[in-house]
Amino acid sequence: MLKYEEIIDKLLSDPIYVDGDRLPPIRALAEQMNCSRGTVIRAYEILEERHLAYTIPQSGTYLMKRQMTGAKSQNRIDFVSAGLESRLRPHKHFEHCMIQALQSEHYDYAPPEGLESLRKCLVSHFEKRYLYTSVDRILVTTGAQQALYLVLQLILESKQGLMIEQPTYGDFQRIIEKTNVSVYTFNREGNSIDFNALEITLKQNKIGWLYTVSNFQNPLGTSLSSKAKKKLLELANQYNFYVIEDDYLGDLNLDLKVETLHYLDIENRVFYVTSFSKTFLPGIRIGTLIAPETYVEMLKFYKKSIDLNTCTLSQMGLQKYFDAEIYDKHIRKVKRAIRGKMKFLRRYQKLFIEKGIECEIPDAGIFAWLVFPENIDVLRLVKILKAERIDVIHGNFFYWHQRRESHAIRISIANVNEASMTQGIERIIEVIEHIK
Amino acid sequence: MLKYEEIIDKLLSDPIYVDGDRLPPIRALAEQMNCSRGTVIRAYEILEERHLAYTIPQSGTYLMKRQMTGAKSQNRIDFVSAGLESRLRPHKHFEHCMIQALQSEHYDYAPPEGLESLRKCLVSHFEKRYLYTSVDRILVTTGAQQALYLVLQLILESKQGLMIEQPTYGDFQRIIEKTNVSVYTFNREGNSIDFNALEITLKQNKIGWLYTVSNFQNPLGTSLSSKAKKKLLELANQYNFYVIEDDYLGDLNLDLKVETLHYLDIENRVFYVTSFSKTFLPGIRIGTLIAPETYVEMLKFYKKSIDLNTCTLSQMGLQKYFDAEIYDKHIRKVKRAIRGKMKFLRRYQKLFIEKGIECEIPDAGIFAWLVFPENIDVLRLVKILKAERIDVIHGNFFYWHQRRESHAIRISIANVNEASMTQGIERIIEVIEHIK
Repeated sequence: MLKYEEIIDKLLSDPIYVDGDRLPPIRALAEQMNCSRGTVIRAYEILEERHLAYTIPQSGTYLMKRQMTGAKSQNRIDFVSAGLESRLRPHKHFEHCMIQALQSEHYDYAPPEGLESLRKCLVSHFEKRYLYTSVDRILVTTGAQQALYLVLQLILESKQGLMIEQPTYGDFQRIIEKTNVSVYTFNREGNSIDFNALEITLKQNKIGWLYTVSNFQNPLGTSLSSKAKKKLLELANQYNFYVIEDDYLGDLNLDLKVETLHYLDIENRVFYVTSFSKTFLPGIRIGTLIAPETYVEMLKFYKKSIDLNTCTLSQMGLQKYFDAEIYDKHIRKVKRAIRGKMKFLRRYQKLFIEKGIECEIPDAGIFAWLVFPENIDVLRLVKILKAERIDVIHGNFFYWHQRRESHAIRISIANVNEASMTQGIERIIEVIEHIK
Repeated sequence: MLKYEEIIDKLLSDPIYVDGDRLPPIRALAEQMNCSRGTVIRAYEILEERHLAYTIPQSGTYLMKRQMTGAKSQNRIDFVSAGLESRLRPHKHFEHCMIQALQSEHYDYAPPEGLESLRKCLVSHFEKRYLYTSVDRILVTTGAQQALYLVLQLILESKQGLMIEQPTYGDFQRIIEKTNVSVYTFNREGNSIDFNALEITLKQNKIGWLYTVSNFQNPLGTSLSSKAKKKLLELANQYNFYVIEDDYLGDLNLDLKVETLHYLDIENRVFYVTSFSKTFLPGIRIGTLIAPETYVEMLKFYKKSIDLNTCTLSQMGLQKYFDAEIYDKHIRKVKRAIRGKMKFLRRYQKLFIEKGIECEIPDAGIFAWLVFPENIDVLRLVKILKAERIDVIHGNFFYWHQRRESHAIRISIANVNEASMTQGIERIIEVIEHIK
C-alpha cells in the first residue's frame, strides 16, 4: 500500500477521526505518519476528489459526513433518485442568496402560510408557468410532501372517498394506506385514463377527491393529454369532487406549456401541489400548495399545528434567489440537461423493442417505465441489479398496497450521467438475456 | 422637509422601489434628486439605523422587507413573544456556520429522523443538560411544535385519554381541541400539581398520556419540584401512562440542573420535547423529540409522511454550530440576560403585592403570570394596553377551550429590554388603578 493510501485508509477507518471533523494539520499528520508533507497533501487532495473531504479557505480540510455524501452510492448507478445531479444544482448562486438572507438577520417565526414577500414572488413566478393565482391562495410548505399531507387532512375531515390513479407516486399511497380513507383506484393508460371505469366508480360511490400526477407522471413519465385533462375536470364538476394535481416537475412548464389541470380549471376544483426539490434544491425543503379559497383558512390551521411554519431561512433564501432573477436561467439549464438525457435514453428504444421491453420514453420529465415480457422475473432482476450496484425501483411499489404484479421497473434519469446510463441500461439488457 | 428626508420618503413610498430591491447607486440617485452624494449617503444610513435597509459589502444597500423587520412592532412593547431579543441571537456566528454548510454543497434529502451527524452532536449536547439518551431515540423535528404533533399522532392511534395541566401552552390545546382525543384536565399549583384530583381521574378513566411543561412553565413560569416530578413518574408507572414533557427552555438547564422528568425516568415513560427556537434561533425551525425506543419507528413513519425530513440546510448549520463549540458560550450569555431581566422584573414584586396582584416571579425562564384582583376586568385591561401599544396575553388563552375566567395575564420578558419593561409594567399598574 502506498503511503498516501495508508493515510486515507487511516483517516476513513480510525474512529478518532469523526465525520465532520477538521482533519489534522498537515505538518502534524506528516510527523505522526512519518512521511513528507507532500504525501499528506496528496492524501487530502484525493479525499477531496472522492468527495470525502472538503476545504474551507482559512479554516482547514474537513472530513465529509459519509451519510451526506452518499459515498456509498458513488460507485452505484442511481436510477432511483428524483433529485438532480449535483452538477445541475445551483449551489453557488443559492449560497450567495442565503448569505444575504443570513445577513439581514431577520429570520424569525413566519406566518403559517409562508412569508408574504415570498408568496408575492411565487405569484409572478407561477404566471410564467401559466398558473394564475393570488397571494392569498398560496401556502408555502415543507416540501411538496407536506402539501399532500395537508390536503390529506381535508380528505380525512370530509369523510368522502378518494380516487387514485394506478400506478402512481408510491410514498403518497403508503401514507394513505395507514388512514381510514376509502380509496378507489383507476388505471392510467398512455396519455389518458380509463374514464369508463372511473365513471362507474363515481356513480357507485361517494367520491370527494381524486389524486393525479398529471404531467411527467411518476412512475410512468407520461403526461395526460389536453383532452383527457378537460374530460377529468368535466367529471369533477359533474360528480362534485376535488382534484389534487401533483405537479412535482411543474418548473419544466416554463417555455414549454404542458397544460396543468390548474390552468384549465375554471370552477375551483383543483388543489395544485408543486415542488422546489426536483428542479432546484431538495435540502431547503420547500414546496407549494395552491388551494381553493374556501379551504385556505383550514389549511393554515393544519399547517400551524404541524410545524408553525416552513423554515424561514429557506424561504428567505429562495426569495432572494427569485429577486436576483436567475431562477429562470437555472430552470432552462435544467430543462436542457433533462431533455438531453431523455434523448440519450431514447437511443435504446429500438433495442428495448427488440428485447420485448415496452417503454414509452417521454420528451421531458425524469422517469421512464420499462415493462418486461412475462417470462422475466422482475423481482429477481431488481435483486441482481442491486447486487451489481445498479439501483432501480420495482413497479409494484407504485400500486395500491403494492398488490399488483406489475412486471415493470421505474428508471429515473435525474441523478445519472450519460456514462452511467449506458453502463446501467446495457447491463439491464444483458441480465434479462441471462435470466429469461 | 430636509432633502434626505425627502429621499427616505420617496424610497419608502414610491412603488418602483420594491421591498428587497437593491437601492439605486448613490451617484444616480443624487443626480435624480438633484442633491449631493453625501445627502443620499445620509439617507441610506438613516434607513439602516431604522432597520429599513441593510448593506451587503461589495453588493449594495437593500431595502428591507417591511413585514420581516417587524417595523410595525418596533414601537410596541412586546410582552407576548417567546423568541429572544435580536441582540441575544447568535446571528453572526450562525451565519459563518451556515456558509460552511452551504459550501459543502451536500444538503440534500435527509433521513426522516434527521442527519445522523447532528443526532450524534445532540447526544453529547444533551448530556451536558443531564439528558442521557442515544442517537437512535432522537428525532430532529421542524420545531418543538412538530415534536408535539408527532406524539399527538401516537395519542390518536392509541385511542386512550390524555391529561393536560391547567393552565398550559395554548397552541397545543387549540390543536387537540380539534381532534377527538378524550381530554382530562388537572390543576398546576405552585411547584406541584393537584395530585388528588389527578389520581381520581386516573382511577376513573382510561388514560394513556399526560402532557406537562415541567420547567419554567408556560404560562406560569414556575417549575415542578423534584418531589412532584418523582410523584408524577410513580403515578405514570402505577397507572401505565406516558408523560409528554415539553421542555421548551431545556437549554437553560446547562450548569443549572433543574431536573427534567426525562432525567428522573427509569421506566421509559417520557416523550421528551425540546426546542432550538427559544434560546437559539426560531427561523431555522429545529426542535427535538426523544422517544421511548418502541415508538421510534412509528414516529419516523409519521415524520416521513408529514414532510420527509426537517430542512437539511438548517440541520447542517446547527451541526456546524455545535462543531464550532460555541453553543454553550451562547447559552450562558442568554441565561445571564434572562436571569438579569427576571431580576429586574422582581423589583416590581413589592408593588404588585401592594396593588393586590399575585405574581410569583421565577429565578429563570421567560414567563411571569400576573393574577389581578377580582374587581379588575382583565379583558378590558388587555384591550386598553393593546391600544397603548403594550401587548400581553389574556390568561384564558391558556385554558382548555379557553373556558376558564382566569383574571390573569402572561408576561414574557424574552423580547423586551429593561426600558420597555419599566414603561410597560408601570403603565399596567396605572391602568388597573384607573379601571378598578
